[in-house]
Parts: sequence; C-alpha cells; structure tokens
Amino acid sequence: MTTDQDRSGIFEGKQSLLITDTVIDGKSTEIFINETGTIAAIGDLRAGYKAEADYIIDADGALALPGLVNTHTHAAMSLFRGYADDMILQDWLGQKIWPLEAHLTGEDVYWGTKLACLEMIRTGTVAFNDMYFFMEDAARAVDESGIRAVLSFGFIDLFSDEKRENECRATEKFTRHVGSMNNPRIKSAVGPHAIYTVSPKGLEWCAEFAKEQEIGIHIHLSETEKEVNDCVAGHGRRPAALLDDYGILTPRTIAAHCCWLNEAECGLLGKRGVSVSHNPASNMKLATNRAMPWQQLVAVGANVCLGTDGCASNNNLDMFEEAKIAALLQKFFWNDPAALPAPRALAMATFAGGKALGFGSGTLAVGAPADLILVATRTPCNTPLHNAFSNLVYACNGGSVETTLCNGKVLMLNREIPGEEQTLAAAKAAAEDLVRRAASA
Amino acid sequence: MTTDQDRSGIFEGKQSLLITDTVIDGKSTEIFINETGTIAAIGDLRAGYKAEADYIIDADGALALPGLVNTHTHAAMSLFRGYADDMILQDWLGQKIWPLEAHLTGEDVYWGTKLACLEMIRTGTVAFNDMYFFMEDAARAVDESGIRAVLSFGFIDLFSDEKRENECRATEKFTRHVGSMNNPRIKSAVGPHAIYTVSPKGLEWCAEFAKEQEIGIHIHLSETEKEVNDCVAGHGRRPAALLDDYGILTPRTIAAHCCWLNEAECGLLGKRGVSVSHNPASNMKLATNRAMPWQQLVAVGANVCLGTDGCASNNNLDMFEEAKIAALLQKFFWNDPAALPAPRALAMATFAGGKALGFGSGTLAVGAPADLILVATRTPCNTPLHNAFSNLVYACNGGSVETTLCNGKVLMLNREIPGEEQTLAAAKAAAEDLVRRAASA
Repeated sequence: MTTDQDRSGIFEGKQSLLITDTVIDGKSTEIFINETGTIAAIGDLRAGYKAEADYIIDADGALALPGLVNTHTHAAMSLFRGYADDMILQDWLGQKIWPLEAHLTGEDVYWGTKLACLEMIRTGTVAFNDMYFFMEDAARAVDESGIRAVLSFGFIDLFSDEKRENECRATEKFTRHVGSMNNPRIKSAVGPHAIYTVSPKGLEWCAEFAKEQEIGIHIHLSETEKEVNDCVAGHGRRPAALLDDYGILTPRTIAAHCCWLNEAECGLLGKRGVSVSHNPASNMKLATNRAMPWQQLVAVGANVCLGTDGCASNNNLDMFEEAKIAALLQKFFWNDPAALPAPRALAMATFAGGKALGFGSGTLAVGAPADLILVATRTPCNTPLHNAFSNLVYACNGGSVETTLCNGKVLMLNREIPGEEQTLAAAKAAAEDLVRRAASA
Repeated sequence: MTTDQDRSGIFEGKQSLLITDTVIDGKSTEIFINETGTIAAIGDLRAGYKAEADYIIDADGALALPGLVNTHTHAAMSLFRGYADDMILQDWLGQKIWPLEAHLTGEDVYWGTKLACLEMIRTGTVAFNDMYFFMEDAARAVDESGIRAVLSFGFIDLFSDEKRENECRATEKFTRHVGSMNNPRIKSAVGPHAIYTVSPKGLEWCAEFAKEQEIGIHIHLSETEKEVNDCVAGHGRRPAALLDDYGILTPRTIAAHCCWLNEAECGLLGKRGVSVSHNPASNMKLATNRAMPWQQLVAVGANVCLGTDGCASNNNLDMFEEAKIAALLQKFFWNDPAALPAPRALAMATFAGGKALGFGSGTLAVGAPADLILVATRTPCNTPLHNAFSNLVYACNGGSVETTLCNGKVLMLNREIPGEEQTLAAAKAAAEDLVRRAASA
C-alpha cells in the first residue's frame, strides 16, 4: 500500500483502490476496487481493505455515482465549438459546417475526439455513443483516453448506388478495424445517418449487417417536423414505421432526437425495445419546435436515455447540464412541473445509457466494472444537501466532478487529468488550422 | 509592489492591481485598477504600471468580462436548494415552502444570503436584485460578502388593511436601515410581491414611497397564465395596465418573469422604461407554459435583463447557465434558431443588468468601477476559441470563472475565496436546523 501522499503511478491502472469517506444513497461508505477494475466490495470496509489497497482515495464526503453515459454525440465536432451559432439550419450547414467538414482530416478527428474525451472525463462521462467520419482515428483517441465508446461511421449515401457501395465497404472496414483493436472499451455500431440521407437499400443493408455482426445501430430519427412531413409525403407513412420496414428498429438500436414521434410511433419503439436518446439542448438551440414525448415513451417501456449531440449544436458535452435541461424542457413543453423528476433524469444519464450501449455501465454494484465518479459536496451546489438527486440535476454541473474512474482506472483525480494541457493545445491548433484551410480554399 | 508569489493581503481591498495577459475583444491586454477600485487604464500597460501596482494578477490568457448581474432572486432561498422539486405549484408552496418559511429566522436569512453571495462570487456575479424577508440580516451578509445588491423587503399584504400598514412600516424601516449603512454597494428598493398578493392601496403606497425616496421597485409580473386570467376577470384589464394605473411602471422598476405579456403590454413596459428580468430556468421548471416575448420587448426598447430566481425554483445562481437557457428557450419557444444570439444573451447578463440596478456595472471601461471577472481559456469549454461569446454562453458555465473583483476588491482569486468553508458549513447547519424545527412543529 502506498501512502495518501504518494500518488506516483495512480493514473496507470491495474491497481487496487480503496475509496474512503464517500457517500452512496445518503450513507457514508467505502468502495474497494480490485486490480481488474471491478467493484469488489461496498460498505464499511476500512478495516478489511486498507492494507490490501495499492492506493487510497479520500473522497472527503463526495457523492459516488456511476459514471455518466452520453448516448448521442459527434465527438470530433468539439473542433467546431462556437464556430457557427444562432443561424437557421440551412445557412448553418451550407455556409459553415459543410465547408469546414470538407477539409477535415483523420488527424483533425483524432484531436477533436481527444478533446471531447477530455471534456467528458472532466464532466463525469465514462462512455459515449459516437457517429462521425475518420472513425479509425476516433477509435485511436478513445483507446488512449481510457473511456468507453460505441463508434459508428456516419453512413450517408444520398440515394446514390455508387455512394452506397462505398459506405457499405467503409462500414465493413471500420467494423473489422474495431474488432482487430480487441479493446473491450470500444465497440463498433452501424451508423445510418437518417431516412433523408440514406436510401432504402442502404438502410436495409445497415440493418442486415448489424444483425449479422451482432452490433448496434445508431441513427437520427424525427428530429424535425420537416423530416416527418417529407416522409409521409414520399412514403405514405411516418419515419418510425418506415425504419421498422427496413429492420432498423431493434433492441440494439439507439435512435437520437425523436422529437416528433406520435403515440403510435412511441408504441412501436417500445415494442421493438429501441433505446431513445433525448437531446434537449440541441433540440432547443436548433428550434425543433417540439420536445421528445418522454412520458409516452416511458409508458410503453422504451429505454429513454440522454445525449448531448455534437459541440456544433450544444456546445458542450456536460451530461449534468443536459440532465437539467431535459428535466426543464419536459416540464415546460408538456406543461407539467412534475414531469421528468430529478431521479429519473439522472437514471437516463446513467442506468438507461449503460443499457443502451450494452457496456454494463450505469450502476454501482459489487461485480460491476468500476465506472465511477466522485462529486464534491463541499461546494455551493451541494449545500445544503437536502436531496442529492435534486442537487445533482438542478444545481450542479459537470464542474462538480472531482474524480473519474473507468473500468477501475483513474482518469481524473481531484480534477487533475494527465496530459490535459497538451490535448487542449493540440486540439486548438487543429481547429484553427482547419478554419485556415477552409478559408483559403 | 509585491511579488507574484506574495499574496498576503490581496483579498483586503484598497490596493492597486495590474492584471496581465488577459483578453478583451480577442486582444491580449492589461488592466490597471487603482486603489479606489476604479479601472484606471486598459491596454498595453506593462511597462508603465508594473512598478506602481500593489499586486500583479497574471490572468494566463483568461477572458476579462464585466461581472455578471442577477436581476431577480431571493438569495436566502439557497437554504431551500433541493428541498422540494418536481411538484405542482400549489403542493410545492403549501406543503413544502410555506411551512419552512414559517420557521425562518433572521439568522437563517443571514446564512442563506451568505451562501448565495458565495455562490455568486464563485460563478462570476457581482451584483444582484433581491426580494425576501429579514432583509436587515440579508444586508449584513451582502455587506460582508463584498458584492453589490439592491435589496427589497417582500411586501405582501394579502388585501388586509392591517397587514398593509405593517408592510408599509417594515418597508420604511428597512429603507432607513439601508440608508444608515451608508454602503455604496447596497441599495434598497420597494418590493411589492405581485398583483395577486398586494392590494391596490398597497401597490399605490409602494409606487409613491419609491418615488419619494428615489429608489427602485422590484415586482413579479405575469409569471403565470392564471395571474393574467384572474386579473382580467377581476379588474377588466391585464396586469401591466393595472400596475401602470397604480404608478408601478417606472424606469426604476424591475419586473420579473413577464412570460405572459401581450404585445400591448410589451409596448407599455417599453414606453415606461421598465427593466424586464427574464428568468427562463425557473419558468421552465415551474412550467409557466410560455416564454417571455424577448423579441417584442427588445423591439419596443425595453431593457431586457436576466435573473436566476431563487434556489427553490432553479436551483442555482449561475448566470452563465441562465444565459444559455435563455438563448435556448427563446429559440425553442419562438421557433427561431436565430433568436437571442449569444452576444445579446451575454449583454442581458452584464450591461442590461447593470443598467437595471443602476450600479453602473456591466461594462469594462476606464473610469468604471472594477466589477470584473476572469474566465479561464485553458479549459475544454473555451477550446477552441473561435468565438468567445458563443463559448461563454453555450459551452462554459460559472465554473470557468477563476477570479472575481467587485469595486476593485478581489473576492475570488484563482478559485480561492477566503472563508468559503466556514460559510458552507454554517449555511448547511442552518438549513438542516430549519428543516428540523419545521418537522417538529
């Protein structure tokens, strides 16, 4: 055992840890994590494990929570943070986002994903569901960061046979690549972007390939009213029914946004066991004009989880903030101050997210991997501490997270993250260079 | 001049300060603050002022901003943070808030206000507009905290002549008390709670007294649809017209919420020069079902500012978060992604707030009091830094504030606030004791 003072090596992983003076469900407790990264014991352990632990982390009364799970983002878009805001969708995409994306390189995506992982570690997120391009570079960044991710190549064929073939091959190649990494923290999924960017044949291929490979599907669904209206006009039925025809709706599927689902579509998603990712900040910023029908989805047993969307439309990856905005938006839009209470909002960001990604994250239990965060209580946002759920959702934000562990590895300790400065500097340089290249093109 | 290392005494005030390596409008600059707390020079000053300054603060590339101004809160309700959430309004008030308030003491209000001021300093707010009870104790807390406040005793006569007389005397007494404090950071205002809690005679007295004393008026206006409907049913006209009849609408008036204003009422508020405090998080949490008509108010020249409301209905005092939620809510509710762009949202929280409170806060200019904050840029939320306004509003929160000055006095330096631990502990104890007293009553 090392002393509390000797911290050299604590970020290296594969060591046993004893967390003391932490609070779970209002009770002071200890947590012992063995060297395989598993929670081995929870309770009054001090006597039994103090000698055994490689390191002791004194949590100083901090709340222990399962690490948060972000079920919809485009991590590398952290490079676009603040590049274009307050614009109508067509101008935003056509004048700003697409011209920049045309100049993206794999190295940009690597640094953008590194920056995103850093921000997630800092704000208590230990797993995320990603869709973007240059995904082998994204995978490299995730591998180094120490958190978990389900990564999907954004499959966009724009109804062209030739493009579709390219996207199929790219998806296959990336799936093989992730397999070859053999990193249990990283999984691949199939990423058909949306019904308005992927052909029926493309969607069918994605469903078939995901089934054959037993991997997830990550798709945008019913984000805008236009998507629904165009779908009804073109196909005579609504988006969820259309996706169901193509085999896209499965228990391995995460559907993002889902603002414009009607009751029948909620029922269909529930029946198929789809996970629905609520993205309230992005929906409000881009003015989708309707909030996801949380109550209806919950009523049919759908697994409703939470995501930030990418930093071009949010503009951060703080899942605590997202949980607050989710609870506020549900109350406001559906005109019910009792809608989406704080414990449910937090469960969306933890348990439901873990279930959606299939990582087994999302709970603190003996035998579970130690995906765990410590949230400071000696702060204004946790003073007084009448109700931890309320404070966590309505008063605190990701800045209250002091320590983050994923699979037992310490990724942040008392707000220190090894290598943070270098990542910030390199990501900043990559973003600036990208803008320069786009401007001089 | 002391060295960078010698920091003893930097929190004591009445010293000259040179802030180096800070960024204003994208340019690296220095700021010199003289010992009276006034910004004496801004620019490339290093050579000229280094010898003269008592202390040098190396901002390490942080953004310098005017300190934020919170134009509607009930500071001492920080003691109620997380005590009751996710409930319908009547149950929330009747079962939770009022029973607790019945046991409030002046000492509770002192510690609640101390906690609130601490949280504001930590999140970059330097001035606030308060309405509550035991206001002499609130004033004592503000005096000690070092920030600015306009304080009003919540005038509630419930249409009783006897109560009205009591409220008038209490208001007079508190106004005299603030006068006797002779602290330029603290002003009194008259605080008629709302049209549904204050009689016409009470409202008229408040308007008259405020005019005579040349002090502000702080009132809740059109928070809910019920308030409007009841007013129309009872008086044959809408709330703003009613208040105008009683003389409440003046350039010294701050009207909070204003969710349910119609176009004519916006015009009236604009004509009377009223400041309108937008409180989006509280409105969403309590499901007011309509967002303040920002665009209409701006079109008629109303001074639209920003406030958090009290911690029972938000549940924090983070004005950066509030600015984000304001921008998101305006876009979402009014179905326009270009509504309330980031620079305007930030101006609501700075310039417009300073104007509303009449403190001259809200700008960084030579000759202005140094109400100033430094926001870290070596953080994920400010990386990359394509656009500082966008990052500040959409990506950062109050946790990015490193240093807070009010009237030239350093209240927080590199996230250190003297006395923080004691305030947190005492406020926690006060809140717990209050709940115990209420439970055993």
